[in-house]
Order: sequence, then structure tokens, then C-alpha cells
Amino acid sequence: MKDLDIEITLSSKKKTIPPFDQLEFGRTFTDHMFIWDYTEGKGWHDPRIVPYQSIALDPAATVFHYGQTVFEGLKAYHTKDEQILLFRPDQNMKRLNRSNDRLCIPKIDEELALSALKQLIAVDRDWVPTVEGTSLYIRPFIIATEPHLGVEPARNYRFMIILSPVGAYYKEGINPVRIAVESDYVRAVAGGTGNAKTAGNYAASLKASESASENGYSQVLWLDGKERQYIEEVGSMNIFFKINGEVITPVLNGSILEGITRKSIIELLKYWNIPVVERKISIHEVQQAYNDGLLEEAFGTGTAAVISPIGELFWQNEKLAINNGEIGQLSKKLYDSLTGIQKGTEPDPFGWTLKL
Amino acid sequence: MKDLDIEITLSSKKKTIPPFDQLEFGRTFTDHMFIWDYTEGKGWHDPRIVPYQSIALDPAATVFHYGQTVFEGLKAYHTKDEQILLFRPDQNMKRLNRSNDRLCIPKIDEELALSALKQLIAVDRDWVPTVEGTSLYIRPFIIATEPHLGVEPARNYRFMIILSPVGAYYKEGINPVRIAVESDYVRAVAGGTGNAKTAGNYAASLKASESASENGYSQVLWLDGKERQYIEEVGSMNIFFKINGEVITPVLNGSILEGITRKSIIELLKYWNIPVVERKISIHEVQQAYNDGLLEEAFGTGTAAVISPIGELFWQNEKLAINNGEIGQLSKKLYDSLTGIQKGTEPDPFGWTLKL
Repeated sequence: MKDLDIEITLSSKKKTIPPFDQLEFGRTFTDHMFIWDYTEGKGWHDPRIVPYQSIALDPAATVFHYGQTVFEGLKAYHTKDEQILLFRPDQNMKRLNRSNDRLCIPKIDEELALSALKQLIAVDRDWVPTVEGTSLYIRPFIIATEPHLGVEPARNYRFMIILSPVGAYYKEGINPVRIAVESDYVRAVAGGTGNAKTAGNYAASLKASESASENGYSQVLWLDGKERQYIEEVGSMNIFFKINGEVITPVLNGSILEGITRKSIIELLKYWNIPVVERKISIHEVQQAYNDGLLEEAFGTGTAAVISPIGELFWQNEKLAINNGEIGQLSKKLYDSLTGIQKGTEPDPFGWTLKL
Repeated sequence: MKDLDIEITLSSKKKTIPPFDQLEFGRTFTDHMFIWDYTEGKGWHDPRIVPYQSIALDPAATVFHYGQTVFEGLKAYHTKDEQILLFRPDQNMKRLNRSNDRLCIPKIDEELALSALKQLIAVDRDWVPTVEGTSLYIRPFIIATEPHLGVEPARNYRFMIILSPVGAYYKEGINPVRIAVESDYVRAVAGGTGNAKTAGNYAASLKASESASENGYSQVLWLDGKERQYIEEVGSMNIFFKINGEVITPVLNGSILEGITRKSIIELLKYWNIPVVERKISIHEVQQAYNDGLLEEAFGTGTAAVISPIGELFWQNEKLAINNGEIGQLSKKLYDSLTGIQKGTEPDPFGWTLKL
């Protein structure tokens, strides 16, 4: 593996690390951050680790106006034997480059970016929390920095990595969440940016989440933008249903994000010989399965929450209570196995984890 | 009209104003900018005009990650009698608030925002260019500044206005442009953010423009995301067709931007008693009209270019040459009339212009 030669400036004034049992999601950041600049004609240059600080940008920087930005999210876990594990970080770097391609952002060298990520965590390794359910959330992202109001790809970019020690994403923890099926708003459509991890997708989702939240639901279930019946994602997670013994997840169609947790769940189920299929699945089919008593479990998957069981689906004024609003056996088993692999308490037959 | 009480800090080091006959679009900015901050529980506060400078933001600011941002674009014109005219700025502030609503950004007071805009231009009035075809481009925008990685509306925002003296948007000037009909990518779909002026829509458009550009086309014609046949916009402009004496523009459907130039063109045509209709129009209908010799003119409309005649449409390997690739009579008349009103050389029967 290649190493990136990084200039490191250590912080002279360390922050107080917050108590690991009181962490919120994404509000506290570590002592350092990584920066790598891109200049047209020169490529990516001056990789450096510096004290965590504000960045100065021209108010005309493209990112503010035309949203040319991509990001990733992954986690580092503290093991019982004092090691730090990353979960499939190579997959995040690959996806970052796929997002870059869609957003006309110059590609990064995936191995060098991963080297930067490892070096940054090594510098801030005291920030990887040790309490059950916590982890160090890692946010690599790229923004267009050129001050130019013409609608065209920028000539200058900045790649950064910031780190945040986090508790559980949902206050409910692993308890099931209540989800409202979204009928008015659409997250993404084929030909759009739905399968890229870019800011605009998340901005587009806020309004629907706000309405759902006002009605007591924590997330929305997104239907396809074309026929408004096929299930795409739940909030900012992928979704799985267990119907009559078979696990079904919407097939990647260009508007669904290619989740790394999603991919891992599919691989884990196949390894266990549990039937799993990627295909189109409509909300009508889910309702029919519910009516027939065959809808056994439903859960969202993502880096932030890992597995998020769905206890209730609200659709056309009807409440579908899944598994009596309790976490299903398979959801629980997947959560335990996946987080076990991530934290190094379970064997890792796939070689998914990377020791720092 | 209400006035906003603004603290003004003048620049001690004025920049050299560039020659007005050598302006590019959106690369040069004036000496000052306007800033207005929003804090949850406190509202919009501390409106100020300060020297144009970089802004410092936490790398975790929501705008970088989840794209919560909106913007506007309008122009100020220098008249022959040394006055400065704004074109329908109230419409921009109204649209900004509609975009705010879609993006879960707190509303601004439209009159106060317009007051800020006028005061900023007054401070930098020497920058309003005097050469034919030039203007001062005005870019109000709002970004979410709270440092938080959770996907939810931010608690802090910044409203800014920056100014840029500009020449023509297209190097071709008022000459007709060549447009490729886009078959792979989609700009927006009903239920998405297409009718909001927000960054993600523009980020989503870059890839298609890049492909079109490689094939010698300056913009793409966007079709609807659902059936991929109804015409939506052209590049970042609205579009009009003149077919057999009647002017047709796609009806606002939730995914098309409500252009202020578009609205003005419709009002102008009605005033002239020229038949104009807002309705769905498919690319097949345009092709049929072309085949029948009835497609007389086509043009894009927007603040940046005002009127941009379309000389050629490329669709399914066929080149549709419109009006022999020359600017049409009506396009020319609309351009002359609208820019005449904007610059104060033509009467303004609608009361569209606002004197500074």
C-alpha cells in the first residue's frame, strides 16, 4: 500500500475530549484535520494535517452557488485489545471517486487518500471513543473552491477529512423507528444524482423529513420519482424487507445510493445461506405482504446507524405495525454480527476490517 | 418602502476597476459585500456592508455537506443619463423566499433584503459598467453555516450579496447557440428541487453540459425526468418555441424554474398581442413542427443571457437547424425591447425597473 507524504502541524492547544458516554452525532470534532488542494494543471498537491480550524473561502467559491461537492462517511472502532479498526475504507474511497465522476470533480488516488485517513486518525487516536455503541465518525469531503459564478466545473478543489467521536445516530438507539411513506417529495430520479454522495441529495430531502417529523415520524420512505410506487431508500439509509422468509432490497437503479452497509448485509446473508434478492419492490407489494401476514421485518442500513429496525410504516392513512413494533430476530442478528465484526469482537471471515 | 439599518465599513484599499470592455462573466468582484447572519431564536441580525473578503467557516458547516443553500441572480444597468436601474428585484426576493421554503431555510424580509441590495450597489456604484452589453451582476445567496453533520436543517445561516461587473454571458453574444437534447441525464423531477434556485440543481447539470460541450454544443435541452419527452429547460435557462405564429413555453410544473425573464417575456408578448401559451410540449412535437416547416424560432431566456437564440437542436443523431441558424425576428425584437427597458432606452409600460 502506498503512503502519502503529509506535512503535519500539531495543535499546540489540545481540546478537552468530551466524556464518551455523552456524545451527540457530529457536533464535536477532534484536534486535527486533513487538507489536500487541487489546482487545474497541477493536480492534487500540498497534503497536510493541521489543527482543526475554520477554512477561509472566497464568497464566490463554486461550492456555495452550484453545489459541486461530494463526501463519504465511515467509522473507526476501538477494540477491547486497544486496537483501532476501520470498516471497508477502500469501498468508501472507490465510491468517492464514483461520486467525483458524476459531479465533474477530479479523481483522487484512492490508496493515497486512505493513507491520509489513517495518518489523521493516528494523530487523533485518543479521540476514538471506547464506550459501547460509540465510534469515531470519519468525514472525507471535497468542495469546489474556485471563485467563479459561471455554471461549469471549477478549476480548484479542496479535499478534507474531519473526525467526530459519536454516540448512536438515533436517540432511540437500536429501537425500531417509525417511518412515513413520502407521497409529495422525491429524493432522486434515474439520470439525476441519487447514486452519488453529494450535498444536493440531502438538501432535497430536508423538507420531507421536516413534515414527517411534525407528524411524529423519524424518517421518510422514498418512492421512485417516475411511477411513485417503487421503494428506493429510507431517510438517508438503504432499506431491506423480510417477507415470507426471504430478504428483499431494492436493486441499484441509478437513483439509489450504493450503500457499503447494504452491500455488507447482502454478503453476510449469502454467507449465512439466508435467501436475499435485489429487485424492484413496490409499496403495494409491501402492503399486500403485510395484509397477508408475511411482512416479517424491515430495516434501514447505513454507516451512521448500521441497522435501524422499522417498527411502523405509515402509508395512505394506514399504520403498518411491523413485528409488533419490535426489533426482528434477523435485524438483531445482523446488527450484532456487523457491529461485532466492526468492533473486532466477532470473527471477520471477509477481511472487511483494516487495522490501523 | 422599509430601509434596513446597515453598519457600513468601507474598504481602505480600493481595487482597480477592470476595463469595462474586457469583462468576463462572474470572475471579478467589487470592493464590498453585504452580510446578514441568522441565529436560531434570534432571527436575522447584524446586517453589515464590509470590504469584499474571504469568509471563514467551520469545515463541518452544513453547506459543505448537505447543500442547504439558495441563491438569486439579477442585474443593475447604467443608463445614458447616469442613473442605475434594477430589473424587477422584488421578484427575485419573492423567489428567494420560495426557494428558502423548499430548502427549510428561514425566510428573509423581502423589503429589507432589497434595501440591503440597493445600499450595497450605492456603495459600489462606480463598478456598474457603462459599455454596451455590460451590467453589474448581483448575486444574493444564503448558506447554512452551523457546524453539524446530522442531516437536518441548520440553526445558523448567512445571507450575503456579492457584485460582479459582467460582459455577455455567452462568448457568442446574441448569436444563436447550438443545443444538444439530453437523453441520459435528468436535471429535476416533480417533487424534487427543480423549481428552487438551489446549488444541487446546478451541480447535477454539469455532467451533461460537459458531454454536450465535448461534442461542440454549448448547452443541453432538458427533458422531463418521468417520461423523458416533455421539454423542461435549456441549460440554466427557460425555453420558448415559435411554432406556426404561436409562442409556446413549457408550463410551470414544479420541476421548472420560475424564471423572471420568462415571466417578463410572456407579459411582453401578451402586451403586443402575440399569441403565447404555457403548456406541456414534447420534443416529438418540436421535431414534427420542424419537419412540417412550422418551427420558426427557439430561444432560451434567463437573467445572465436575457435572450439566447437557438440556432440548432441536436436530437437522436439529427440536426434541426432553426431559422437557418440565424436569430429570428421575434427573438431579436424581444431582446431589443427587454434590454431596452432594462437599460432605460425604451419606455417601461409595466413599471418593471427600479431606480436606485
